[in-house]
This record gives sequence, C-alpha cells and structure tokens, in this order.
Amino acid sequence: MTLALGIDPGTATTGYGLVRLSPNGELVAVAYGTIATSKDASPPARLEIIFDELNKLIKKYKPETAAVEKLFFARNVTTGIAVGQARGVVLLALQKFGVETFEYTPLEVKQAVAGYGGADKKQVQEMVRAWLQLESIPKPDDAADALAIAITHLNTKRYD
Amino acid sequence: MTLALGIDPGTATTGYGLVRLSPNGELVAVAYGTIATSKDASPPARLEIIFDELNKLIKKYKPETAAVEKLFFARNVTTGIAVGQARGVVLLALQKFGVETFEYTPLEVKQAVAGYGGADKKQVQEMVRAWLQLESIPKPDDAADALAIAITHLNTKRYD
Repeated sequence: MTLALGIDPGTATTGYGLVRLSPNGELVAVAYGTIATSKDASPPARLEIIFDELNKLIKKYKPETAAVEKLFFARNVTTGIAVGQARGVVLLALQKFGVETFEYTPLEVKQAVAGYGGADKKQVQEMVRAWLQLESIPKPDDAADALAIAITHLNTKRYD
Repeated sequence: MTLALGIDPGTATTGYGLVRLSPNGELVAVAYGTIATSKDASPPARLEIIFDELNKLIKKYKPETAAVEKLFFARNVTTGIAVGQARGVVLLALQKFGVETFEYTPLEVKQAVAGYGGADKKQVQEMVRAWLQLESIPKPDDAADALAIAITHLNTKRYD
C-alpha cells in the first residue's frame, strides 16, 4: 500500500498528486491539486508559500516516496532558473521529511503512463484518468501532470 | 552600520560574504567563505546542507539585508536548473529569517565594485580587496564573488 507523491514544480503553480498502490494492484488517487502563488508576491515569498504548503501536504498524507520530473530543457535559461528555484524548495521539503525522491524524464512518464514515448499530452491525461478510474480528466493540467509522475513512479517500482 | 550578506549560490559551492558599512563610510569584511557539498550526496541532500549552513550563518551574524546575483544565462539549461535549485533554498532561508534580498546583474556588480561594466574578473577581485582593505584577494573565487555582491548592495544603497 505504497503512497507516492508526484510533484510538478513551478513558481506560479506547483501541481501535486498523491497516488496509492492498493494490495490488489489498483492505483487510487488520494488527493491532487495545485499550490498557487501570486505574481504580486516577491520571488522569495512565493518560494516560501510553495515550501510551507508542501510541508503541510507531507505532514497530512505522509507519503512514503516521491517523484518529480527530470528536466533537461526549458523555454530558455531564465525559465530554467525559475523552475529550478521552485524545484529546489520542493526537493528540500521532501528531504527534510526523509521522503526519498526519484526523478523521471518526460519520455519515461509517457512510456509508463501511456505505454509509448510518442504519446501526446492529451493521451497521457486520458491514461491518467483511466489508471485512476476517475470519471473525468483531473484538472488543472499541473495536477494531472503530477498524478502522471506519481503513476510513473509506482508503475516503475512494481514492475522492477 | 548596515551588515549585508552577499551570496553566490551553486550546488557544489555556495560563496558567502558579510560586509559591514561603518559609520565612517568604510566597508569591512566581517566574514566570508564557502558552503561546499559533496557530489557523492544526492541533490536533495546537497540542497539541505546549503539551507542548513546558511541558516547557521544568518543566525550567527544576523545580517540586516542580503543580495544575490541576478542570472540571465547559464552554460545551458541543465546548469541553469541546478543553479536555480541552490538559489531557491538560499532565497527561502533568507525569507524565513525576514532578511530582505536584492538582486543585481553581473553588469551592476562590475559597475558598483570596479567602476565600469567592462571590468574583468581579476579587476573586480582586486577592487574587492581594495574596498575591504584586505592584504590579498579573498579566496576562493566564490567567496570573492559573494563579497563583490555585498559591496554592490551597500554601495548602491548608500548612494541612492
């Protein structure tokens, strides 16, 4: 009954998704959503909100394991630095709670969730819905992305 | 008697420099050095070391204000993300202690420390030594860079 926390970090919106692997092998969405920060806040204040809200989620749900997307590119270096800053406080929060964190490339996420690396965003989202037996695609996109990362992690682990 | 903390964040080495603006207008190096992390440690463990060591420095010296370099570029996006992660936990630590943090571009640092934007690294380091009335250029480079950022901040503030 492993509980995995998937996270899609970003300064404006950090998606999170908690997925449980049931004894019967089914994947269950325990909780998902986003941590949003206002662009009126300073960059350090936004990072603090992400860190504090993530701390609350970890305390509440006590995930045993976590996963984030491995980034190789961004629209540009400025975007890369901003995403890196959010990712830094996310990794720090998980480390502070002793939650081991794994990284998966976008290709690994597509393969583990949709079965092939050429899947597009919509197909991945539809497969997230199917894996979790939800009635509709989870919203917003950042939460669906975070759930996809959690599913990737659990599927990778159990078929190891 | 403002005490400013300049920081040059990096995953492997984070430079820091504490500079005091004396009542007579002189700049004094209070402390400087680096926070080094082992590449054998995981990225989250390295971020935790940076965060924890910086917390200790802030508690010990109680800087009133801080400054980091504003980044627009990196060798590539992967480097940008790694620097961003270190920068994220640095900004978080300062935010947690309520230390207001300012950002300066590399050009602003060169202008404020060496007097002109075309100064090279060696000239900036020599001017750091001169501003702080040190006998030799502070080592290592990351500490000298951090001192340059602190000097930039104090010089920018007092001539505002």
